[in-house]
Amino acid sequence: MLELRLVQGSLLKKVLEAIKDLVTDANFDCSTSGFSLQAMDSSHVALVALLLRSDGFEHFRCDRSLSMGMNLNHVSKLLKCASNDDIITIKADDDADTVTFMFESPRQDKIADFEMKLMDIKSEHLGIPEAEYQSIVKMPSQEFARICKDLSSIGDTVVISVTKEGVKFSTRGDIGSANIVCRQNSTVDKPEDATTIQMKEPVSLTFALRYMNSFTKATPLSSSVSISMSSDLPVVVEYKIAEMGYLRYYLAPKIEDDEEQS
Amino acid sequence: MLELRLVQGSLLKKVLEAIKDLVTDANFDCSTSGFSLQAMDSSHVALVALLLRSDGFEHFRCDRSLSMGMNLNHVSKLLKCASNDDIITIKADDDADTVTFMFESPRQDKIADFEMKLMDIKSEHLGIPEAEYQSIVKMPSQEFARICKDLSSIGDTVVISVTKEGVKFSTRGDIGSANIVCRQNSTVDKPEDATTIQMKEPVSLTFALRYMNSFTKATPLSSSVSISMSSDLPVVVEYKIAEMGYLRYYLAPKIEDDEEQS
Amino acid sequence: MLELRLVQGSLLKKVLEAIKDLVTDANFDCSTSGFSLQAMDSSHVALVALLLRSDGFEHFRCDRSLSMGMNLNHVSKLLKCASNDDIITIKADDDADTVTFMFESPRQDKIADFEMKLMDIKSEHLGIPEAEYQSIVKMPSQEFARICKDLSSIGDTVVISVTKEGVKFSTRGDIGSANIVCRQNSTVDKPEDATTIQMKEPVSLTFALRYMNSFTKATPLSSSVSISMSSDLPVVVEYKIAEMGYLRYYLAPKIEDDEEQS
Repeated sequence: MLELRLVQGSLLKKVLEAIKDLVTDANFDCSTSGFSLQAMDSSHVALVALLLRSDGFEHFRCDRSLSMGMNLNHVSKLLKCASNDDIITIKADDDADTVTFMFESPRQDKIADFEMKLMDIKSEHLGIPEAEYQSIVKMPSQEFARICKDLSSIGDTVVISVTKEGVKFSTRGDIGSANIVCRQNSTVDKPEDATTIQMKEPVSLTFALRYMNSFTKATPLSSSVSISMSSDLPVVVEYKIAEMGYLRYYLAPKIEDDEEQS
Repeated sequence: MLELRLVQGSLLKKVLEAIKDLVTDANFDCSTSGFSLQAMDSSHVALVALLLRSDGFEHFRCDRSLSMGMNLNHVSKLLKCASNDDIITIKADDDADTVTFMFESPRQDKIADFEMKLMDIKSEHLGIPEAEYQSIVKMPSQEFARICKDLSSIGDTVVISVTKEGVKFSTRGDIGSANIVCRQNSTVDKPEDATTIQMKEPVSLTFALRYMNSFTKATPLSSSVSISMSSDLPVVVEYKIAEMGYLRYYLAPKIEDDEEQS
Repeated sequence: MLELRLVQGSLLKKVLEAIKDLVTDANFDCSTSGFSLQAMDSSHVALVALLLRSDGFEHFRCDRSLSMGMNLNHVSKLLKCASNDDIITIKADDDADTVTFMFESPRQDKIADFEMKLMDIKSEHLGIPEAEYQSIVKMPSQEFARICKDLSSIGDTVVISVTKEGVKFSTRGDIGSANIVCRQNSTVDKPEDATTIQMKEPVSLTFALRYMNSFTKATPLSSSVSISMSSDLPVVVEYKIAEMGYLRYYLAPKIEDDEEQS
């Protein structure tokens, strides 16, 4: 039997909004350690990885490991019926072919339950090796989202270049070219407003802005985002989920030839 | 001669927004007792009844009873030109074929008048007998609107079931099934937040969500809504209009066969 | 060399939003006296004139007069990348075929620069003679915008009539007719809320509402608007730009025959 009670139900709503545009159907994996998901986007270019650790739930019972296949648009529709301050409980029997989402209002005077059929989804779980990155940029998530959106009005790809001074986002399109530089500023009032750079080596990589804009749907989950880059690895765009885990997006850089074609 | 002066002009704006999607053309009936409307929706399934009592107007002159046929979309367009704090006056001569809406700003420095042609609309006035209902649910109007909207994302019909404990709204669709239970809670801080149930007999009836969603356009008119149900009568969804009257919607329940077909 | 530094960068964003729907391509003219633009709308009916005086800039360097042709939609796209509190600098070399817009965040931790190709646009600079107007109405810009929008839901043209008592806006359409009268009210708390009328002679002129609605895109630039009318001259709709200059729209009145046709 599975029973996961999450007091901060709005977290789950935000998670679904952050992944449903990228992934249509996916397995949610549940084990004693937590609730997780790993899925490629429909064009098999980006990878999404979610982890919500069991100790972040008010109640977490998972008698045996379970993989529950769901259509994320359907889950998103159900979760839209939850108010932001609702407590959400996910329930399933072992070997069941349905899952139940229960929403309780804080005053317990409104209780909703939604039963949904599970799907059989084949998926391979990729082992993602821990890696050392040449550069890691941590910056306000809203600023990163704003920059990706702004550059999209000019070009299709972004070059992200990290130096000691800061991180530069560049693009080029029919109407002109753009460079946006964010400088390190660890001395701000709020730590979440800081832009910090951990750099072993300067790095400059090119990415499709379309994917970056999809990733920034996770902005409501965290006030800061970290971007980990190495020239021979996919970039990792990570949003921490308060005390519970993370939502990570992986995307391979475009190589020179791609750039010329686009 | 007719001259009705309504200080709280925003009321009239809200009334039009609450009925214009359901009814295209209708007669506004004016007599010494008040300003009223009764109309079937265009598919002849639901009935709308409005009453604004004469004593709720700052000035109410109606020399002889008058029935004024209007296109409600046109009236809504005119009323959108009134600011929310404008005073609205409705004027017509006896036997006139036009009606004039006048909007005065509170400071009297902006005065607008709109003249509109009246229409000849044939309509029967249905006598609606006073009835005793098996169950009457009073609940916050925003909560009722939210529930109808939420269930619409899953199914087409709603089963409303009343018991002593509370009222249950259920639906079923391709992606799954949903039950939302609201419990009695008369002990809340604000009376308009209360959910109360007057029950002589438990009742469970099925309705088309499409109509329920149309009715909830009246939500801005009142902070609470009452839903009166008997197994052999149309449901009455009533929004009180502060100290002046009401807007009521009547809708026949779906019978079993309907349910199976839908 | 050209280098114009504008601390209140949001002004430039508002200017572009106010003219880009009316004018597609235009020359920005820069001289020691300031930064200006004069352009006909694409159907050659309305004229837009912008002036930002050099003393309103924090830094204004213009070694020789320059006329820079730009696509206003492109400029608008670039300026949307500037935050409202950004400082904007416009830079160009003499004889350059590009212009650079630079946006600095107030804390200087984010610096963006956008380079855009200039265009070769042929345009005649019309000399607009100073004129004496029969009537000048000054009124809150939001109210003027609201009136133009409201009347557009009823008719296509507006008759603006000025008398000593006030200014009347009238229209007529399929659903009826409308008159909105704004009275002089210089005794209000805030001077920008005042409606004042300077009248030498009563005047009544007819204009296409479509253009008036385009002009009101400038509403965010100023809390009041002035409308200068004479029976033999184009109307001037002017929005002052705080201590720096103005944005003016010129539009010829419709003559009687036009009215009948429309």
